[in-house]
Amino acid sequence: MNHFPFQVLDTGLDVVPGFQATGVHCGIKKSKKDLAVIVSDEPAVAAGVYTRNRVVAAPVLLTRDNIQKKGAIQLIVVNSGVANACTGEKGLADARRMAEMAAREFDISDPDLVAVASTGVIGDFLPLPAIEKGIHLAREAIHRESSGHSAALAIMTTDTYPKERAVRFVIDGQPVFLAGIAKGSGMIRPNMATMLAFILTNANVERVTLQNALNKVVDRTFNRVTVDGDTSTNDMLLLLANGKGGLPLTETHPDYPIFCEGLEWVCRELARDLARDGEGATKLLTIRVDGAGHEEDARRAAFTIAESLLVKTAFFGEDPNWGRIIAALGRSSAEIRPERVTVSINGYRCVEQGRSVQGDVRTQLRAIMKERELEIVLDVGVGGASCTVWTCDLSVDYVKINSHYS
Amino acid sequence: MNHFPFQVLDTGLDVVPGFQATGVHCGIKKSKKDLAVIVSDEPAVAAGVYTRNRVVAAPVLLTRDNIQKKGAIQLIVVNSGVANACTGEKGLADARRMAEMAAREFDISDPDLVAVASTGVIGDFLPLPAIEKGIHLAREAIHRESSGHSAALAIMTTDTYPKERAVRFVIDGQPVFLAGIAKGSGMIRPNMATMLAFILTNANVERVTLQNALNKVVDRTFNRVTVDGDTSTNDMLLLLANGKGGLPLTETHPDYPIFCEGLEWVCRELARDLARDGEGATKLLTIRVDGAGHEEDARRAAFTIAESLLVKTAFFGEDPNWGRIIAALGRSSAEIRPERVTVSINGYRCVEQGRSVQGDVRTQLRAIMKERELEIVLDVGVGGASCTVWTCDLSVDYVKINSHYS
Repeated sequence: MNHFPFQVLDTGLDVVPGFQATGVHCGIKKSKKDLAVIVSDEPAVAAGVYTRNRVVAAPVLLTRDNIQKKGAIQLIVVNSGVANACTGEKGLADARRMAEMAAREFDISDPDLVAVASTGVIGDFLPLPAIEKGIHLAREAIHRESSGHSAALAIMTTDTYPKERAVRFVIDGQPVFLAGIAKGSGMIRPNMATMLAFILTNANVERVTLQNALNKVVDRTFNRVTVDGDTSTNDMLLLLANGKGGLPLTETHPDYPIFCEGLEWVCRELARDLARDGEGATKLLTIRVDGAGHEEDARRAAFTIAESLLVKTAFFGEDPNWGRIIAALGRSSAEIRPERVTVSINGYRCVEQGRSVQGDVRTQLRAIMKERELEIVLDVGVGGASCTVWTCDLSVDYVKINSHYS
Repeated sequence: MNHFPFQVLDTGLDVVPGFQATGVHCGIKKSKKDLAVIVSDEPAVAAGVYTRNRVVAAPVLLTRDNIQKKGAIQLIVVNSGVANACTGEKGLADARRMAEMAAREFDISDPDLVAVASTGVIGDFLPLPAIEKGIHLAREAIHRESSGHSAALAIMTTDTYPKERAVRFVIDGQPVFLAGIAKGSGMIRPNMATMLAFILTNANVERVTLQNALNKVVDRTFNRVTVDGDTSTNDMLLLLANGKGGLPLTETHPDYPIFCEGLEWVCRELARDLARDGEGATKLLTIRVDGAGHEEDARRAAFTIAESLLVKTAFFGEDPNWGRIIAALGRSSAEIRPERVTVSINGYRCVEQGRSVQGDVRTQLRAIMKERELEIVLDVGVGGASCTVWTCDLSVDYVKINSHYS
């Protein structure tokens, strides 16, 4: 994959100059890390994308406000275990308190330069004493050594592994880094793809340009992922740019497309990581719908297939029941020409003209479906529009995890 | 429940004069009954509702056509095990062949008076020799004794028990009967509620009136049920009225509302039976959304909650995680006033003003959630519109059943 105009790095947040990060255990959870801090040497230009759920958790309300007001963030503090959602006025005051505690501990003059994020059970209040202790521990930990990996661990809930992605590219002859962490892994659906993600760069990009780039990229990456169709009240993606990496990068700068491609790669790989590590997932499924009359139809068809329980359970069971893909397509409300529909799975064309091809399709498919990553490509025979979405299978473990969560 | 203007009967199709029914094993499935026949002494006025999936199975195409042409049906032949969907021209010819075989065996002059229905795996062709044998066996069985119960058994796929409902009422002083059978139990979703159902009556209702009554009732019953959000290619509900029960029943007849209420009761109870026996279900969930700005908003909110995997798995696990109901409500695109939202579960008000009530809500809920039937009532604080839908929980068994179906 070396046609990228950037270099993929096998590292995380620590590669970006001017930022430190860590994750600690402060007692919200029994023993796992549950509080992360990311801090910048100085206020960094900030862009954000937030849940579109009509029930918006307190930390999202506060962070959105702060970024709106200041356009800059110097510190992000995140807890897992408690979502601080559906907590009313007290929840908002608690989120503000969390920001103030972090500002004081890290000598940041203005608490509005702090972003807070929470993930976990809805309806419970934040355990502020634990969070205060955690922020103090984080300060000590960062003082010893920055660890983006610890931060990636501390924001996890039911994720089975931390998600970290980083790239390096060159702008105006200077090295620029872009790195991100994310957590899933249930309630994963646009808009936005229901998760927490924090991306850092030392690029020098002003506020509006940064937000525009983020919006465009999120729509093609995080907003194309679904695990279970559920959107959380706490989704948040923040992108901070501290400007240490050279001259200002405007939309007309010849290297601007490189920055956007790097950002898209990081977001897409984090998004795919979310699908791959969906709760109980055993397979990453890529659903591509081609030949739609317009993009919205392609999107609807792809999401309907990606969210069909019958499709997802068939992939879990490696059951070559391709009819379920067609049935989901048919109910998606997208315009299709049933007699022209084709379906391929990992390159094997199993359906043509809306019917099974000749031969022992089930045996062929049964072998293909043993793969860990599957690409399902449909052509619906109407026009030229396409859409790709990522999801995972639905396993017995998804139900086990989610029937005993709180 | 004796305020009904009709009597609920503990029986099935056999109670309706002028119809015979049976179910036999013909070899499509290993050992279970797999072919049902319902036959009327003479052509009966017919109304139908069919899948709205854009991929429509051959039997649905044929039956819809026949009812369109004739407005009457004398025989219904149904097989389970093979759906005859995504089978192209040959599939349509096979469905026609199945109708012809039934017409010949039962001495029906015109095969267009035969309705065919199929349910099972998509993509396979009908095993016509087995079906021919089954139709012959059905003729012999009916000759011995009609058994609506056998028919109810023969249309089952993954259903765990047959669904039969019947009522008796009086019109113009004469007894009129209305009885139906249905099968689920995955791919259950409007529109229409993705299943097969066959309802018989000896009422004397002309074609347009019968179809209007059916449309109205289905919208409030079968179209309010969802098991997994998937709509099949083969859904079909037929209502046959042989007219033996007295004077013509027009929309202005004083007893017409009694007929409609009886029809609605049969359809609602069959629909609830489908939800109760959803694949792997352990609980019947009724979701009622009140206080919406308009009915479409209420419908959207109720369905989003009813189809949320996180809500459904929480009920399976009896996990008092009410936040998931709020999170699903919030992403439903229905207008809500988060600060006014209330939630009750089996009469226990756990959320007020969008927040948890005082007290040990989780302990209370944990006890309530052990019930087999749960009613979740929300008020979204906007207006006066309501909608009720029925669904079931999502269990480990759902995944097991559906990962190894074909």
